[in-house]
Amino acid sequence: MKARIVTLPGDGVGPEVLDAAVAVLEAVAERAGHTFEFESHLIGGCAIDATGEPLPAATLEACKKADAVLLGAVGGPKWSDPQAKVRPEQGLLAIRAALGVFANLRPLQVHPALASLSPLKNEKLKNVDVLFVRELTGGAYFGAKTRTTDTATDECKYTVAEVERVTRRAFELARERRQHVTSVDKANVLETSRLWRSTVTRIAAEYPDVKLEHQLVDSMAMLLLTQPSRYDVIVTENLFGDILTDEAAALAGSLGLLPSASLGEGKVGLYEPIHGSAPDIAGQGVANPVGAILSAALLLRHSLGLEIEATTIEAAVNHVLSNGPHSRDIGGKSGTAEIRDAVIAALDDVA
Amino acid sequence: MKARIVTLPGDGVGPEVLDAAVAVLEAVAERAGHTFEFESHLIGGCAIDATGEPLPAATLEACKKADAVLLGAVGGPKWSDPQAKVRPEQGLLAIRAALGVFANLRPLQVHPALASLSPLKNEKLKNVDVLFVRELTGGAYFGAKTRTTDTATDECKYTVAEVERVTRRAFELARERRQHVTSVDKANVLETSRLWRSTVTRIAAEYPDVKLEHQLVDSMAMLLLTQPSRYDVIVTENLFGDILTDEAAALAGSLGLLPSASLGEGKVGLYEPIHGSAPDIAGQGVANPVGAILSAALLLRHSLGLEIEATTIEAAVNHVLSNGPHSRDIGGKSGTAEIRDAVIAALDDVA
Ligand SMILES: CC(C)[C@H](C(=O)O)[C@@H](O)C(=O)O
Ligand SMILES: CC(C)[C@H](C(=O)O)[C@@H](O)C(=O)O
Repeated sequence: MKARIVTLPGDGVGPEVLDAAVAVLEAVAERAGHTFEFESHLIGGCAIDATGEPLPAATLEACKKADAVLLGAVGGPKWSDPQAKVRPEQGLLAIRAALGVFANLRPLQVHPALASLSPLKNEKLKNVDVLFVRELTGGAYFGAKTRTTDTATDECKYTVAEVERVTRRAFELARERRQHVTSVDKANVLETSRLWRSTVTRIAAEYPDVKLEHQLVDSMAMLLLTQPSRYDVIVTENLFGDILTDEAAALAGSLGLLPSASLGEGKVGLYEPIHGSAPDIAGQGVANPVGAILSAALLLRHSLGLEIEATTIEAAVNHVLSNGPHSRDIGGKSGTAEIRDAVIAALDDVA
Repeated sequence: MKARIVTLPGDGVGPEVLDAAVAVLEAVAERAGHTFEFESHLIGGCAIDATGEPLPAATLEACKKADAVLLGAVGGPKWSDPQAKVRPEQGLLAIRAALGVFANLRPLQVHPALASLSPLKNEKLKNVDVLFVRELTGGAYFGAKTRTTDTATDECKYTVAEVERVTRRAFELARERRQHVTSVDKANVLETSRLWRSTVTRIAAEYPDVKLEHQLVDSMAMLLLTQPSRYDVIVTENLFGDILTDEAAALAGSLGLLPSASLGEGKVGLYEPIHGSAPDIAGQGVANPVGAILSAALLLRHSLGLEIEATTIEAAVNHVLSNGPHSRDIGGKSGTAEIRDAVIAALDDVA
């Protein structure tokens, strides 16, 4: 097949990990006879430096025309004043909104070879296999904001339609997994959560084969630690999802390992490792490219329908995690390029 | 000294754990020659059943006249419909607001004898000693809410004055501890967080002896697991505090162990264990009273200025945690009354 992929390397280690992910995609394309065209554009801090805007119009236009978008990371100390008018994260939020990617999928598994890196006890990590579905284009992230000298406000807003579509996505994904959806809200306090809960409950009736459970966000923050293997698909609103997925990511031993896929109704998906721009190690060639490479696998699966190729990449990554080489964040000594090459070499072993 | 303490047992295990805490306070009073008068009032589900309201006027009046208020827990399956007009938690939110207790203190230490119960690896738990200061009377909990068939909104609002007072409280507490405050917000997305961050930064200048660090709430959710011993005082807004303190509570091995104190400018403090009403074990005499007993110790310290008596209770609890008896939630077989009696007996050993 032919596909057009826009890459948005962004800032910090973003370009380094994206280079590795693109190399893996090219290796897969070559083996399977696909043609992937890559086109790189600016986003985040580097875009602010070059154009004054965190999401230049040219970038957005290219993304809209692409089959999929692969993003590195945005931000860094140079642009880190949260009071500044123009900030790198605005680019990220703007592209999520513009592409309408309302469902952010963050799978979490703990590779057995890396259990020793997790802060959690080994017995807790057995059989952990969670898929977070975080609502990504609503809530307090995109609500009205006000600010005076004395006061600030953020409005969290959800419509029934916004909750319905992300709920359906979660239930459809649960069908292909262990048929269990946990919906997280704060319905004992927030009105948006009460709307969330009643909508999720109603949509759940369309999926009688899937079990629905509700949890309050504070309890869920605890249960992720005490009973992580109990959960299958966890669906929640934007801000709760931001917090819970980062908490869960700590379980995996390193942020550098975890991918994400952001999907809407349209075909253009946005794929990014969940780690940030890691300015402390940027430019040194030591960033772990696994999160970006696994994001590329999700791209093949969800935007291009290439399930076999996606599984092959995931198997190759698992092979490398089991046998090495390992990057520094997971206790090894290898750099980004070595990990990239090892994953590419493993594509043949696992095929 | 003479003091008037209002008890609000509430629902579920609330009455059982409060009985134990009151017995410990009475034992301390007898030993030290104090006179504590206790007066019990309704709150939560039982108040709804008796009066139709989760916080009856008589309860509020009594609390306002008291020297301190000791609360058990509210809620239970009988009143658990989040869409209901009248809910037990409304009583809790209303009393927090009415007493103006804007600073919710939640200390977290992991007793060495209980490290095996924590989901976290033992080496991570060493030297964990965190004091959360959660803003308790602002934010989305108390902002305007709207609801139509199609849409719901919650407004999160903070004024500079609200942030200033809780920040000062956090810095004052840090002075007596390890001189380190970590302020948690989501300043890369929320306007209220940007106001929070600039206010905290400004107030910090009044405390040059205390080190200030800012963390984003998503990073903090991770750092609590990967580097819990790095933190001293953590100050944050209401909803983030709700989530992070529950996450942190999981580290202690059981929710049943942890106390809280809610303080305002006035003298009336509100003290409650952080566990809920635990309807599954209510009425069986097996609830762990340690969270309530330690809340009573905080009451002596913060509302009555009885530091020695507070420390004595804490030492007695530590003695019981080290030597037993242990309640079921921490792997033992003893009931609420046995733990209560053991703590009271230990008051003499540790004095
Ligand atoms: C960078 C930030 C705006 C972003 C978010 O909060 O969504 C990040 O934390 C994430 O989770 O992708
Ligand atoms: C019961 C609920 C309203 C309450 C809160 O969210 O504040 C509880 O979770 C707490 O932390 O005290």
